[in-house]
Amino acid sequence: MAFYSLAIWGQESAGIVTSNGSTPPTYTTLKGMGLVSTAFKPEDLLKLKYGNLGIGHTRYSTTGISELQNCQPFVVDTLHGKIAVAHNGELVNAAALRKKVMRHGVGLSTSSDSELITQLLALTPPMEEVDTPDWVARIKNLMTETPTSYSLLVMHKDVIYAVRDPYGNRPLSIGRLVPISKLHSGTGEGDTEGWVVSSESCSFQSIGARYHREVQPGEIVQISKHGIKSLSVVPRPEGDPPAFCIFEYVYFARPDSIFEGQMVYTVRQRCGRQLAIEAPTDADVVSTVPESATPAALGYAQESGLPYVEVLCKNRYVGRTFIQPNTRLRQLGVAKKFGALTDNFAGKRVVLIDDSIVRGNTISPIIKLLKEAGATEVHIRVASPPIRFPCYMGINIPTKEELIANKPEFEDIAGYIGATSVRYLSVEGLVAAVQGGIESCGEKEQISSRTKMSKRIGHCTACLTGKYPVELEW
Amino acid sequence: MAFYSLAIWGQESAGIVTSNGSTPPTYTTLKGMGLVSTAFKPEDLLKLKYGNLGIGHTRYSTTGISELQNCQPFVVDTLHGKIAVAHNGELVNAAALRKKVMRHGVGLSTSSDSELITQLLALTPPMEEVDTPDWVARIKNLMTETPTSYSLLVMHKDVIYAVRDPYGNRPLSIGRLVPISKLHSGTGEGDTEGWVVSSESCSFQSIGARYHREVQPGEIVQISKHGIKSLSVVPRPEGDPPAFCIFEYVYFARPDSIFEGQMVYTVRQRCGRQLAIEAPTDADVVSTVPESATPAALGYAQESGLPYVEVLCKNRYVGRTFIQPNTRLRQLGVAKKFGALTDNFAGKRVVLIDDSIVRGNTISPIIKLLKEAGATEVHIRVASPPIRFPCYMGINIPTKEELIANKPEFEDIAGYIGATSVRYLSVEGLVAAVQGGIESCGEKEQISSRTKMSKRIGHCTACLTGKYPVELEW
Amino acid sequence: MAFYSLAIWGQESAGIVTSNGSTPPTYTTLKGMGLVSTAFKPEDLLKLKYGNLGIGHTRYSTTGISELQNCQPFVVDTLHGKIAVAHNGELVNAAALRKKVMRHGVGLSTSSDSELITQLLALTPPMEEVDTPDWVARIKNLMTETPTSYSLLVMHKDVIYAVRDPYGNRPLSIGRLVPISKLHSGTGEGDTEGWVVSSESCSFQSIGARYHREVQPGEIVQISKHGIKSLSVVPRPEGDPPAFCIFEYVYFARPDSIFEGQMVYTVRQRCGRQLAIEAPTDADVVSTVPESATPAALGYAQESGLPYVEVLCKNRYVGRTFIQPNTRLRQLGVAKKFGALTDNFAGKRVVLIDDSIVRGNTISPIIKLLKEAGATEVHIRVASPPIRFPCYMGINIPTKEELIANKPEFEDIAGYIGATSVRYLSVEGLVAAVQGGIESCGEKEQISSRTKMSKRIGHCTACLTGKYPVELEW
Amino acid sequence: MAFYSLAIWGQESAGIVTSNGSTPPTYTTLKGMGLVSTAFKPEDLLKLKYGNLGIGHTRYSTTGISELQNCQPFVVDTLHGKIAVAHNGELVNAAALRKKVMRHGVGLSTSSDSELITQLLALTPPMEEVDTPDWVARIKNLMTETPTSYSLLVMHKDVIYAVRDPYGNRPLSIGRLVPISKLHSGTGEGDTEGWVVSSESCSFQSIGARYHREVQPGEIVQISKHGIKSLSVVPRPEGDPPAFCIFEYVYFARPDSIFEGQMVYTVRQRCGRQLAIEAPTDADVVSTVPESATPAALGYAQESGLPYVEVLCKNRYVGRTFIQPNTRLRQLGVAKKFGALTDNFAGKRVVLIDDSIVRGNTISPIIKLLKEAGATEVHIRVASPPIRFPCYMGINIPTKEELIANKPEFEDIAGYIGATSVRYLSVEGLVAAVQGGIESCGEKEQISSRTKMSKRIGHCTACLTGKYPVELEW
Repeated sequence: MAFYSLAIWGQESAGIVTSNGSTPPTYTTLKGMGLVSTAFKPEDLLKLKYGNLGIGHTRYSTTGISELQNCQPFVVDTLHGKIAVAHNGELVNAAALRKKVMRHGVGLSTSSDSELITQLLALTPPMEEVDTPDWVARIKNLMTETPTSYSLLVMHKDVIYAVRDPYGNRPLSIGRLVPISKLHSGTGEGDTEGWVVSSESCSFQSIGARYHREVQPGEIVQISKHGIKSLSVVPRPEGDPPAFCIFEYVYFARPDSIFEGQMVYTVRQRCGRQLAIEAPTDADVVSTVPESATPAALGYAQESGLPYVEVLCKNRYVGRTFIQPNTRLRQLGVAKKFGALTDNFAGKRVVLIDDSIVRGNTISPIIKLLKEAGATEVHIRVASPPIRFPCYMGINIPTKEELIANKPEFEDIAGYIGATSVRYLSVEGLVAAVQGGIESCGEKEQISSRTKMSKRIGHCTACLTGKYPVELEW
Repeated sequence: MAFYSLAIWGQESAGIVTSNGSTPPTYTTLKGMGLVSTAFKPEDLLKLKYGNLGIGHTRYSTTGISELQNCQPFVVDTLHGKIAVAHNGELVNAAALRKKVMRHGVGLSTSSDSELITQLLALTPPMEEVDTPDWVARIKNLMTETPTSYSLLVMHKDVIYAVRDPYGNRPLSIGRLVPISKLHSGTGEGDTEGWVVSSESCSFQSIGARYHREVQPGEIVQISKHGIKSLSVVPRPEGDPPAFCIFEYVYFARPDSIFEGQMVYTVRQRCGRQLAIEAPTDADVVSTVPESATPAALGYAQESGLPYVEVLCKNRYVGRTFIQPNTRLRQLGVAKKFGALTDNFAGKRVVLIDDSIVRGNTISPIIKLLKEAGATEVHIRVASPPIRFPCYMGINIPTKEELIANKPEFEDIAGYIGATSVRYLSVEGLVAAVQGGIESCGEKEQISSRTKMSKRIGHCTACLTGKYPVELEW
Repeated sequence: MAFYSLAIWGQESAGIVTSNGSTPPTYTTLKGMGLVSTAFKPEDLLKLKYGNLGIGHTRYSTTGISELQNCQPFVVDTLHGKIAVAHNGELVNAAALRKKVMRHGVGLSTSSDSELITQLLALTPPMEEVDTPDWVARIKNLMTETPTSYSLLVMHKDVIYAVRDPYGNRPLSIGRLVPISKLHSGTGEGDTEGWVVSSESCSFQSIGARYHREVQPGEIVQISKHGIKSLSVVPRPEGDPPAFCIFEYVYFARPDSIFEGQMVYTVRQRCGRQLAIEAPTDADVVSTVPESATPAALGYAQESGLPYVEVLCKNRYVGRTFIQPNTRLRQLGVAKKFGALTDNFAGKRVVLIDDSIVRGNTISPIIKLLKEAGATEVHIRVASPPIRFPCYMGINIPTKEELIANKPEFEDIAGYIGATSVRYLSVEGLVAAVQGGIESCGEKEQISSRTKMSKRIGHCTACLTGKYPVELEW
Repeated sequence: MAFYSLAIWGQESAGIVTSNGSTPPTYTTLKGMGLVSTAFKPEDLLKLKYGNLGIGHTRYSTTGISELQNCQPFVVDTLHGKIAVAHNGELVNAAALRKKVMRHGVGLSTSSDSELITQLLALTPPMEEVDTPDWVARIKNLMTETPTSYSLLVMHKDVIYAVRDPYGNRPLSIGRLVPISKLHSGTGEGDTEGWVVSSESCSFQSIGARYHREVQPGEIVQISKHGIKSLSVVPRPEGDPPAFCIFEYVYFARPDSIFEGQMVYTVRQRCGRQLAIEAPTDADVVSTVPESATPAALGYAQESGLPYVEVLCKNRYVGRTFIQPNTRLRQLGVAKKFGALTDNFAGKRVVLIDDSIVRGNTISPIIKLLKEAGATEVHIRVASPPIRFPCYMGINIPTKEELIANKPEFEDIAGYIGATSVRYLSVEGLVAAVQGGIESCGEKEQISSRTKMSKRIGHCTACLTGKYPVELEW
């Protein structure tokens, strides 16, 4: 049996650490820059074949520093052997914790929270002169020192601990590796059973695993050759609701991921319906900025009764790395990225759904492109509220000053971006669209009329409202 | 003023040749393997900046041999200076022409038609001892020696000739570079006017050019600093209709390209409508294999009245280069490429539209994926007829034996691929959907009832019917 | 003024850390695999331009593990800012020190001594809650905890400490950057003054610096914008002589390096003379295995009166990376690396001088090559004693079992390698050749007759005699 | 049995073409930029394993244009199958021949002589409609059209023709592959017999072959599975002596190569002796600019009686690709490349032997380096005459204006480069040193007194004297 914990949440660097689980264990580490497909060479991956447990990490930098030495998982040797740690999130009290660790006489070789967490695990309480240290007690101790935000994988020898912070700010799901012989397409060769953990449940299907459940806020789950076992749930302070990041629904997660029992695609479609109720439009067709806004656009079309059409097609060969040899091409901007499907909207009034507007510099040229190609009106409907505040919990959002929602031009946002009109989904509408599905309310009923939210349901809306789930230390 | 001819039709290699147009001209050549974005380094492109005319080529190998030396444009030095040739297509009588050239005592250093064309242009009629050779006469002479298939760009000194074979088998469009100051997003810096030629009109928008017209079958168009000028139209044999490749509409072209006055997206949507008429289904939802079949799926939904939903989302990070470290992952196959949007189809009967089925090995696992995720029925509707014959005119289609349409399992194709039912668009339906738009017939009228085809409209359907536009030499 | 400390002692990885010296300082770090020329890209080096002090390190792995994360200098953040450490050598009590550090609760992220040293500096004595920590006291404390072997560069903010262990086992020299306007070839542009530190004084000339002096065993030298200053000399235990690695003279150092006031080339020439006295040969010509044995060969020729000729020329294009496509070429071995200068030795008796014989597998095919090309006798004379014991102080010597001197075939080494005769320099002869020059004895006088060595002169001969300068812990 | 023809004469690009010799033959081609070791990947070389004859080429550009498409061997398909051609040299009448070929209607895709030769072989006399064309007649015909300079390898199907031009300007040697079981180090696995051809005989030893003989001027040698066979010797015009490039002896060839029956090293040593006779010096020591001038320096030392010492050691890690991050390092120049072995020359008068002085910009900083390190006098003695004229026969010599020998500063060359004195070997002295060995004159006898040169001995001294072996066409 093999069991893996995969943490797939980024594209700037990738790392894998496997253990063969023996005494003493042999660890194998691979790290590289870029997407997994470029970070690792096939011959490197062969080195991993003898491990039967492991943790991986792909990084989407939250600080802008993209260096191999910040690449996770972080592995350190302790008195009781090596531990490897992968971390998703950002510790709100990292600065204070760094001071504490350094005051103890520890030098920190990176600026990453992962190293900080690893040294905190090694440091407190003092390392015992015993054969088997109590890692669970150490993890619990860590959780009392920092409230959020972290989803962690901690590997030691033959065990992996999957940990989610008490507020459940970052996601973490458990999947079960299905024997290939039971899968649709397999012959059974190279068959494997086991457990996997990931921040996005959609990754399970890619490796032939099935979604099992989420790690609960504050929960420590042990994964070993004996299977999975819930060891403990560290509580939040009395009265605090959970604070799962609402932007995972809006923007980050793949549409086929499942959080809190609901598919992200369906939530986005519900946001589109809610948007149609909050911001109806007198227009001829509804369309999408492909591909992320498509579920919301279809939802808007269903609720409004307007026909759904495609107005843009992606130019697949213009990627981020495309060469821009001269001023002319640089100025063409978005016209290089999208082709206009003129027949579908020339002479028509278009409602264009976008998922979010962060800086405002991509939607503006799209509007000009559509108008130039014959759209008579372009109404922008955004399936999320304006982002007004920075995130200190792991999401790389521009500074307060850079956010278009905080700029003077926001007062006349339609004029600024050249749209006929612009409307956003309300915060209440978003929360309702998200939380409505958790209790499976009928999709058509007016979501915002729901009255009492149980304490057990709660989301972090800090970037929209400025209300952070815990008080921030500076 | 700058004028460029860009031939963007492939991704295995890329080449650019520019001329500064002076006497004698200085040519600059760049060639590399892979997509344009990887084939050329930015510092290489800087070398091109002093050219004000040029031709480029990107190659999608039709023979499977992918080598730098076959990379176009092909440049040779002749008695009257260098000529550069870019070629899209495949000469049906290449073997006989190679023999002819070699019998004259010329060694051929590649297996490419481009070199063959270049040497034929240099060879016949005998190179004059004059200062300005008559390249147009040479091009016409070439066109009498080979009927199809070729779209050519021939550059000499300060002129580019854009040539399309008499049957018009491969596309070729002319666009006009718009001064950036007249464009939506430009400030006027680095401004340029001029003419561009491309096999796909959709590429014009990417560089700030506007579609002007197609090069007509048999036409030679001269492009120079004096603008564009139609020099000649070489006729087809009496009675032969034109033979533009119908598969450009079905599969190859980007949806925002324009051929024969109609947008490819709209033709595909019409194919979907026609398919709904020919092959109606008793089902709950219509969906697409993203992204190429989406216009046909939306057309099918409109015509049939069934709701359109998305059932699959693409896993963007699983490209062709993904590493497949073990048998398990190899067997997962398509499950790695698509995520199932379960909520949209679980418990429902799905009509899944595909654009074409060549080998049958991608649709089969998708069907299994949908069924496993809860679809009660999966009806495959293919928006084109089965491919049964090889193409000898530039398209890389599997051999007759490899084509699923020619295999015994095709007799029970639904059983073979695991579908509830399978239906194809008829050849007549496809031709009608394509040609109907040319005369702007109303979309809803039953297209197959149209009676007389004018001689001026005609398409190559050889891969579907085995009827080649000219007799093949062997 | 700029001052740099460069530690150039390897070729498996390279690292540079610079500081701009301000408060707080900005550090810039570059690391890469391979020689400096491949490890760093020019654009990377530009990032360093604002530093005016820095330390560098190039690594020749002593443990065989060649990974970027082991690449020095090691930089850690402490309560009082970042320190960067570069280390040449190997701590004899590393295992015990690692335990100590880990018992304090520190996790170690690499297996390198550099990290261990860095954490020891951060750890003990407990980090003060003051603004300026006493780094010198910490370095002295470190030196009491580990006797050898280390040459260190420790950078903090605007100061570099150059440290050599009390036994002086690894070299460390100070050079002075000469203003370019005073140099032979400079125009004065980009002029710089300052101090540099290196393990090999020969590197000074390459950067326009002049040899100043060695850091003494046990000495801590401070380098700052105020110049260099000797802060302290930590003594050895009573009665212990210094123990500079004698193999630096024999093998490692470049011939133009200076140690203990003498040029390495001259020491090697003296070894050749001593060898001629200890092991005279009845032969026709003396030659060298190019290029390292040439000074000894010229010394042997001078002392013996035999003519010096070249018998081998190097095939420059056969490097370590040469491709060996088949068994045949692999078997040719050394014949690929050297050409035989037949005219110089055909029909003659050759004395061939080598600098050392470690595994015996390079000299053997050379002998066969010479004999085949016409040498009548090939007498091997080795300008150093046999290596019989492993080094635990930083030099990567094969295990005891692998060393040819410990193998049964050594009993008849001449027969084993195919030589007419084989003689080695004696340990006493080597020590005399090395130490004789320190007091400038006349070169021709019989060196071994010298009687009393002052305690102040002493060398580590552990790999030859098994007598290690300190007791080894395990 | 396998037979190969290897042409190893450059480092800018490399190509190999093999044939399996069957009917029709399968050719495999590899080409790449850079040294062989970087141009080919091991997996590429595996593709060659089924060939049993082949030709290769490594290029040292004579025109400065370094592009993959100019990379040899050049392979073209003719009416009678593919031929592959590798060429060393430069056709003196290339321009006229290019015109001739192009007038016939052939376009030339490169600027290389190799393609020109290939097309000439294909073109004249007109390609027969027979099964086996008479390649030998075609080669002879080619040799009547161009007198020099070329050494050629022409491969067709199962035969290789090795051809040297009538003047023998470029070298070409035949070697015999020795069965590995008869070699010093082989076990017999992967054993091979056969024939090899190379421009430098020293390459034979590297692959386990033994020097057999030179291809004679004007000779066509056939190599096939039946062994080697001399087919023809095309004569020079009556009265013309042969014209083997004298600079191969002076500069280009590796010292262990054999030309005209003599080892290059020995010729260079003789040049040093002759130089000592022509330009004696009152000095203390003789030394060399390593490594190419060492044989001449040893010859000078022997003839003059002055002691030979080393004054410079190479800094192996400063290659061509070394990074020069700032003005300071650029100005240091040669000081980065060589270390001064001060003890050997401080306070002494040095005679420094160089092999040739082309631009004068490397010797100058060496002289300054030696003087700065304590040499009291530095006398430059150059073991070849000044180069005053360009080469049109394949050697990349600077233009007439760039050559230091043609510059005003040459009048006071010693002052210009900072030497105490400068003397060159005379042209007569060089010719005598080269030709004296051919008839094995005693080395010490005054070579320049020899009187009559047989017509059968002759060398091209054009770059020294301006007397070209044939009249040049322009």
